[in-house]
Amino acid sequence: MNILYDERVDGALPDVDKQALLHALQTRMPALEILHQREETKPYECDGLSAYRTTPMLVVLPRSIDEVQGVLRVCHELRVPVVARGAGTGLSGGALPLEKGVLLVMARFNNILHIDPAARTARVQPGVRNLAISQAAAPFGLYYAPDPSSQIACSIGGNVAENAGGVHCLKYGLTVHNVLKVDILTVDGEHLSLGSNALDAPGFDLLALFTGSEGLLGVITEVTVKLLPKPQTAKVLLAAFDSVEKAGRAVGDIIAAGIIPGGLEMMDNLAIRAAEDFIHAGYPVDAQAILLCELDGVEADVSDDCDRVRQVLQQAGATELRQAKDEAERVLFWAGRKNAFPAVGRLSPDYYCMDGTIPRRELPGVLHAIAELSNEYGLRVANVFHAGDGNMHPLILFDANQPGELDRAEALGGKILELCVKVGGSITGEHGVGREKINQMCAQFNSDELTLFHAIKAAFDPSGLLNPGKNIPTLHRCAEFGAMHIHGGQLPFPELERF
Amino acid sequence: MNILYDERVDGALPDVDKQALLHALQTRMPALEILHQREETKPYECDGLSAYRTTPMLVVLPRSIDEVQGVLRVCHELRVPVVARGAGTGLSGGALPLEKGVLLVMARFNNILHIDPAARTARVQPGVRNLAISQAAAPFGLYYAPDPSSQIACSIGGNVAENAGGVHCLKYGLTVHNVLKVDILTVDGEHLSLGSNALDAPGFDLLALFTGSEGLLGVITEVTVKLLPKPQTAKVLLAAFDSVEKAGRAVGDIIAAGIIPGGLEMMDNLAIRAAEDFIHAGYPVDAQAILLCELDGVEADVSDDCDRVRQVLQQAGATELRQAKDEAERVLFWAGRKNAFPAVGRLSPDYYCMDGTIPRRELPGVLHAIAELSNEYGLRVANVFHAGDGNMHPLILFDANQPGELDRAEALGGKILELCVKVGGSITGEHGVGREKINQMCAQFNSDELTLFHAIKAAFDPSGLLNPGKNIPTLHRCAEFGAMHIHGGQLPFPELERF
Repeated sequence: MNILYDERVDGALPDVDKQALLHALQTRMPALEILHQREETKPYECDGLSAYRTTPMLVVLPRSIDEVQGVLRVCHELRVPVVARGAGTGLSGGALPLEKGVLLVMARFNNILHIDPAARTARVQPGVRNLAISQAAAPFGLYYAPDPSSQIACSIGGNVAENAGGVHCLKYGLTVHNVLKVDILTVDGEHLSLGSNALDAPGFDLLALFTGSEGLLGVITEVTVKLLPKPQTAKVLLAAFDSVEKAGRAVGDIIAAGIIPGGLEMMDNLAIRAAEDFIHAGYPVDAQAILLCELDGVEADVSDDCDRVRQVLQQAGATELRQAKDEAERVLFWAGRKNAFPAVGRLSPDYYCMDGTIPRRELPGVLHAIAELSNEYGLRVANVFHAGDGNMHPLILFDANQPGELDRAEALGGKILELCVKVGGSITGEHGVGREKINQMCAQFNSDELTLFHAIKAAFDPSGLLNPGKNIPTLHRCAEFGAMHIHGGQLPFPELERF
Repeated sequence: MNILYDERVDGALPDVDKQALLHALQTRMPALEILHQREETKPYECDGLSAYRTTPMLVVLPRSIDEVQGVLRVCHELRVPVVARGAGTGLSGGALPLEKGVLLVMARFNNILHIDPAARTARVQPGVRNLAISQAAAPFGLYYAPDPSSQIACSIGGNVAENAGGVHCLKYGLTVHNVLKVDILTVDGEHLSLGSNALDAPGFDLLALFTGSEGLLGVITEVTVKLLPKPQTAKVLLAAFDSVEKAGRAVGDIIAAGIIPGGLEMMDNLAIRAAEDFIHAGYPVDAQAILLCELDGVEADVSDDCDRVRQVLQQAGATELRQAKDEAERVLFWAGRKNAFPAVGRLSPDYYCMDGTIPRRELPGVLHAIAELSNEYGLRVANVFHAGDGNMHPLILFDANQPGELDRAEALGGKILELCVKVGGSITGEHGVGREKINQMCAQFNSDELTLFHAIKAAFDPSGLLNPGKNIPTLHRCAEFGAMHIHGGQLPFPELERF
């Protein structure tokens, strides 16, 4: 596997005296678990984006907030960069370590501290797995709504850092809409509470600012999330289409009909076939695209909405329309979708997962343009995505062992993201910018905007020690990358005008 | 009417050469409407919080974004502070002018630019009235959800600046949850777009940071809001109670039962009687408290929820339970609530409206403590509020012409807000901090947090020219005000422990 990671980020960092750092940490916190031999640190060389790898100088695995504070204080004094890591499932390299930095693993903070059914909140440590919150809330008839596909493994701290989404965020919002309070340690080890248990907090909205800041502003020590009552019932409709454009248009039609589905997902033929081979969900393998539309709520409401969605889908030209006949089939329909990434992974030695978001009305045109780009670059692209949100996950299939394919995949991915920006969308919906999309940030934002981001970063972390080289590119990097900024998305690709 | 405004804010500002400023503005923008005679500027001396008054040095009423940009550039060059103003309905003095500053009136930007029914968005100018958006969206079966009581008059720009709420924000969220994109001009006249038409924007969440920033970070030139489909039906239940504590407890019970009402409002006896005298809504005037609970959605769902809410209210000890028999009575029930402030205003020469927010479970205890404080200070307090959100609006009745009453009202108000902070709540729910609650910010936040706010302010406005003296107090002010910060709300008032 080739390594895409750009060494310039580490290269620009000052050298660190590893022995002095190790000594300071051991002296200050004798009980702190520290990994520093290469064979110990190597397993931490990447997160869920395995194409980027760097072995961290040191890995620390604290067991108490005092230890986290101690690590931050030592690193602050010695000017050593710190990268915090939750479960390491992120898809944009947000937790990619630094050769000249400390990897701060928060995985051991995995206690659910309090469930308050009356206030409908859960107070949890940052290393608690997303699904574990819903499991703990289940006896009270409650659950935590955001459900990334990795929910069985990903941590709530990572979810906050990346502002994670999921299949149900069309109706229930992203992580930022489902957290009430985040406790953090700043770069110099000070405690701060962002947000509150009340409806709104005065002053600037630091909770929203922090959510999705990808580890650049502080280290999360505790999260208070909102819990929702479990819907009484949920039904799933599966609709097949003979073109991706028609399916894309049907998505807009459902929303325009005044219906907000719990989930509204789309897969194209390549993804359908891959998922069907892997999961045997009963998908129609000849369809050019399918939509999965989940409606949840009280019984009467759901059955009413199902009827309306059926009508809309028929008018939009669905060639087949099925409702999951029971809960087992409903789960199976979703299992196909939730395993689509690994399923596509079986078709090709490597794949590159994009995460662009576009206005829903642009779906038909952008899907068409992606098909043309796929032909042009000679690489297959499978489309699996949160259609209702306009959050696309094109998966570019390639073989890193074939000369040039990796470069072509990267170039094609860049083109797709630029296309998203051009039609008024953005380069990430829920996976974050991390290390992967840092160059595309130069397309998304102009230098005034980036300067503002840097000033905000400096307000929290003046010496730039927290997760450097992620999320916000330097102006220097953007200048090197080329004048890629596209203004405000006024000018779609000419070929889009056909739609 | 006595004037509460603290002259120190203006006093600390550098002197401005009014003639030079006037000349620069007139030269640069010959068509710009400028008011500079005292009789012209006097009508702009306050916003909805009429207790605070200052006559602005100059008032400008631009008609184009170019003129707004020109005003900002001139003021930036000459180092003159600028206060932006929408409809001037704010209740915390956020648009209070400065004697040494320019008041930038955005009221003429009142065009609805585009309604997109498929994307369910409206693009509007900042001076558009809140209700006008829903009126323009009505032909498409859509509306804009946040509904401050002033919605007939208040502007969307002001709503964004204050992160306004309303009766329906329990279910539909505050302004921040209902905007997609805000275009601003920075202090030096640069255009910036915050947020996007897509689900999520990469980088830091500047849209959320800006929303509720009370004019400190930039001047709003355009807002894109989300529109929602109008609910099929809405029903209102009115429940009477023989104690405010019981009514407060019933609020928590409804939410704990897994129901999210469209609105859940509470009024105490003084407010009930005042509203009934004024509007004749048919409220039970002997009740110690009433709850109004609106359920909206599809017919079957609403009728199901109504039954469940009835049960909960009965178990909570409601002495009377009525459902509005038709749409006319529903509107009448709400008219009483929406006019409660002016109704209470008829009872007393002056009143002081608070806006504290507390965790719902604290409602019974805090209501009891407010009653005790009311006795202690010898001033009547009427309670009218968004109970479902824990957003309280105690109205302190006083007569500014009676020596000492204004001071007692201010002191009592301060005590109530401190109480909110002590139980883990906040000093504002939806009215903002503005000029009014700037001292209470010293109770809400510690110096680390305030320093961070100032650093963020400086990232946008390094010379501090935008709305100085509002929202974020200086550390110096907090030091003068006294060491009022209460840590994390762990220690409620002793008397609260009884509940």
